[in-house]
Amino acid sequence: MRRKEIIRPDLNPNVSVDCVIFGFDFQQLKVLLIEREGDFPDEKSRLALPGNLIYDDENLNMAVNRVLKELTGLDNIFLKQIGAFGGVDRISKETDKEWLRSIRAHPDARVITVAYYSLVRISDYLPAASSFAVTANWYNVDEIKDLAFDHYTILKTGLNQLRREISFRPIGFNLMPEKFTLGQLQRMYEAILGRSLDKRNFRRKIMKINILSATDEKEYDVPHKPAQYFKFNEANYKSLVETGFDNFSF
Amino acid sequence: MRRKEIIRPDLNPNVSVDCVIFGFDFQQLKVLLIEREGDFPDEKSRLALPGNLIYDDENLNMAVNRVLKELTGLDNIFLKQIGAFGGVDRISKETDKEWLRSIRAHPDARVITVAYYSLVRISDYLPAASSFAVTANWYNVDEIKDLAFDHYTILKTGLNQLRREISFRPIGFNLMPEKFTLGQLQRMYEAILGRSLDKRNFRRKIMKINILSATDEKEYDVPHKPAQYFKFNEANYKSLVETGFDNFSF
Repeated sequence: MRRKEIIRPDLNPNVSVDCVIFGFDFQQLKVLLIEREGDFPDEKSRLALPGNLIYDDENLNMAVNRVLKELTGLDNIFLKQIGAFGGVDRISKETDKEWLRSIRAHPDARVITVAYYSLVRISDYLPAASSFAVTANWYNVDEIKDLAFDHYTILKTGLNQLRREISFRPIGFNLMPEKFTLGQLQRMYEAILGRSLDKRNFRRKIMKINILSATDEKEYDVPHKPAQYFKFNEANYKSLVETGFDNFSF
Repeated sequence: MRRKEIIRPDLNPNVSVDCVIFGFDFQQLKVLLIEREGDFPDEKSRLALPGNLIYDDENLNMAVNRVLKELTGLDNIFLKQIGAFGGVDRISKETDKEWLRSIRAHPDARVITVAYYSLVRISDYLPAASSFAVTANWYNVDEIKDLAFDHYTILKTGLNQLRREISFRPIGFNLMPEKFTLGQLQRMYEAILGRSLDKRNFRRKIMKINILSATDEKEYDVPHKPAQYFKFNEANYKSLVETGFDNFSF
């Protein structure tokens, strides 16, 4: 028998936070999901974004960092707000309602949730499930078709925001290895955008924003013409993160 | 003596919505504010964005439309979410706390708010204060330096989103008169951006996105060279609202 949540009087029954943590493993765009403890008809219906109610003495960004850490072990992640989700029937799926009754002090309370996203390099983090999460793992974004509550809608909204964000600001500094080929960088953009890009066009655009420095190293021992390695030019990269770029899209 | 709020059991004590309604009067960017009924040290400390708690049986967008209508009479306005604001001390100003005690059933409850914005033509709407609003009027955005709760932060965040939004999508269809000069259109962009724009540059950019059709009419009876009138090309305008433009900024 599972415990109900610890009933601190300052646990707010009406407001939760949810995290969409995207991860890149140099090949694919993934998302961090938990399987919830409890009786579910199948594995899939256990799957949810890491999320929980907030305490009244914490700001939303404190809450989302705490909840992410409690459920998945991930810490010190810069999270950006996606927005609030407050549909009246967002917690009305029968499997979710049963689960809420098993864990919540006020399982029928209206809950609006504030969702956040981030994009991290998968190899930098080792998820470790705890609290009501029995697992915390990375899943390919394009294989997810449904999630608990309205989490699938939240995931898609977060993905759209991420895709829009990369038209304004450089990304990859914390996702790519220190040295990388242009093909590897293109693969990252393709994984996030969910579509393939024209190689020549990509190279022209990425060179134009001036965030890369060529190294004098090349790939070796590869079955094709060895590609040159590049690094991010840290100063230019950081200044573009601040200002954003005006005239850019892939 | 003022009434406390009508205590419907489904009034959610923890979640409110707030509206940032920007208005354009062909000259300046304004924002719709209410003066709250009650005892305040001065006029200025009465000023707030229109906002109130949500009911549990309404979605957030239903709530924000209802609250806007109840306080200001404005109806049928397309509102876009700015995001959630949940600082623990967002309602801690003494004047605000006193006002909450005079009106709220649970004046000390933690309240997170979800803010929305819109941009309308001022002459299309006549604000009419009701409920706890004693006035509802337009104020010049650049003259507002403080507001109730965290509403000044919300206003600034909404303004930033509006400014970013106009780099992606055409605006003005519902703000400008049917026929307008390029100078008038430039004035609208300048009012929103809060800075002046180079005339030649503005004209080049606005013609490039192909949303304007020249009419064969010109200004008359003006003390300068009469300017040509333009109209929006409705089809091109609407298609750009859908897709957004990639390579544009003022």
